[in-house]
Amino acid sequence: MKSLLAIEPRYQETDQMGIIHHSVYPIWYEIGRVKFCDDLGFPYKKIEELGIGLAMIHMDVNYLKPAYFGSKLTMETKLIKFTRVRMVFRYEIFNLDHEMIHYGESHLVWVNQDLKPINLYKVNPHLYELFLKQVEA
Amino acid sequence: MKSLLAIEPRYQETDQMGIIHHSVYPIWYEIGRVKFCDDLGFPYKKIEELGIGLAMIHMDVNYLKPAYFGSKLTMETKLIKFTRVRMVFRYEIFNLDHEMIHYGESHLVWVNQDLKPINLYKVNPHLYELFLKQVEA
Amino acid sequence: MKSLLAIEPRYQETDQMGIIHHSVYPIWYEIGRVKFCDDLGFPYKKIEELGIGLAMIHMDVNYLKPAYFGSKLTMETKLIKFTRVRMVFRYEIFNLDHEMIHYGESHLVWVNQDLKPINLYKVNPHLYELFLKQVEA
Amino acid sequence: MKSLLAIEPRYQETDQMGIIHHSVYPIWYEIGRVKFCDDLGFPYKKIEELGIGLAMIHMDVNYLKPAYFGSKLTMETKLIKFTRVRMVFRYEIFNLDHEMIHYGESHLVWVNQDLKPINLYKVNPHLYELFLKQVEA
Repeated sequence: MKSLLAIEPRYQETDQMGIIHHSVYPIWYEIGRVKFCDDLGFPYKKIEELGIGLAMIHMDVNYLKPAYFGSKLTMETKLIKFTRVRMVFRYEIFNLDHEMIHYGESHLVWVNQDLKPINLYKVNPHLYELFLKQVEA
Repeated sequence: MKSLLAIEPRYQETDQMGIIHHSVYPIWYEIGRVKFCDDLGFPYKKIEELGIGLAMIHMDVNYLKPAYFGSKLTMETKLIKFTRVRMVFRYEIFNLDHEMIHYGESHLVWVNQDLKPINLYKVNPHLYELFLKQVEA
Repeated sequence: MKSLLAIEPRYQETDQMGIIHHSVYPIWYEIGRVKFCDDLGFPYKKIEELGIGLAMIHMDVNYLKPAYFGSKLTMETKLIKFTRVRMVFRYEIFNLDHEMIHYGESHLVWVNQDLKPINLYKVNPHLYELFLKQVEA
Repeated sequence: MKSLLAIEPRYQETDQMGIIHHSVYPIWYEIGRVKFCDDLGFPYKKIEELGIGLAMIHMDVNYLKPAYFGSKLTMETKLIKFTRVRMVFRYEIFNLDHEMIHYGESHLVWVNQDLKPINLYKVNPHLYELFLKQVEA
């Protein structure tokens, strides 16, 4: 599954270079993951209600072209790796001319409410299977 | 007590007008309140560990002059009203020329962990007395 | 004109009280103003391209109930006062149960690129008339 | 040169997992770079006044342990690679127990005011030499 998100950069997200500040992209990634779970029919809020969370362990963030307030962007989010303890999402952001202006990855581990890593397959095999089916290399 | 905080605006806090974005000031207010509790000898972290929190109910925010990245500012935080359920802080921000560039107030209520308002005097008379002594109109 | 905006709070906008941090609302107000200009057929980006901007001078912010990640909110933005130099927007935020959980106002002045206040009627009578028609007390 | 920065996480930087949100670290990196330029005697503000900027092209971000509101952290910033067009900073964040809880790198290119890459050696040999001397592998 590839999840699509329309992004309209916020004015507050600009900086004095006149572009979207580089720290904003990881926030967009997160919105992409939340949308991915929504599209999957298992909202992230419900995952947290099960006492399960996701902790960020690594991000790889790549800027090709600046983004601007007033522009309209599209972000594709997909799950590219998935194990019993870890998942890797990939994000690609395009402008209206279908140029990729940004891409990145984030590596997350499943954790319990004490932020200790868990084996998702053991804790919730249903959720494990659901995500596993979405992997797209 | 008047609590003093040195502020060096972050580059990320600028916007494409070339100034500090107006949404940043309430974040500085919060740092001022945290510093106020530190100066009082009762860090906000310890207050939360007692199962007590503060919920924002009202802010009054006034912009006199812009703030810039690269400038150095000073913020004065004081407690101007205090009852058993509510407290009002006032913040004044000055530039290096001692001009006031911004002022504001925030009204907060004491809450328990379910975010229900509490009477601080009943729940923690020691903390109540400590804050009460700091009121400065 | 009353401009409507659907808000889905971001996970990044939560704080450790488990609610949307109070500093986020002014950012939502700004998105409401941008949407208002879009609805008006005069995107804020175009206003800036004319060398005209809006500087915040005052905000009045009122919190009635917390907002949460995973909830869906609606914000109404309207222009309640308008003069040749100043405009006041009012924002009301509702949850899915149609309860108002938040309201606020922001006062802005029209400025040129040096951030000096301008008389919009003199600088751009067309834009002045356009906004004037939208005032709703 | 290794630049040292004391970090006191802001309450606003927490999320509902009770930790500092992962999107905050790149903002801290930026504060580290600004401090690095200050320590070098060439504040970033002055660099921008020369019509020169830095554009982010890549970040590598690694989370070892969570950070918390109320904790005190230290960040070391150093310049680990430097060419005529590009520079790589490395950041390491430690808690009070001297444990590294986070590390990352950011790759930036020198740009002019149109955000076009420039050869710093050609544009400002003095600034080039100044940074070159600080490289520490």
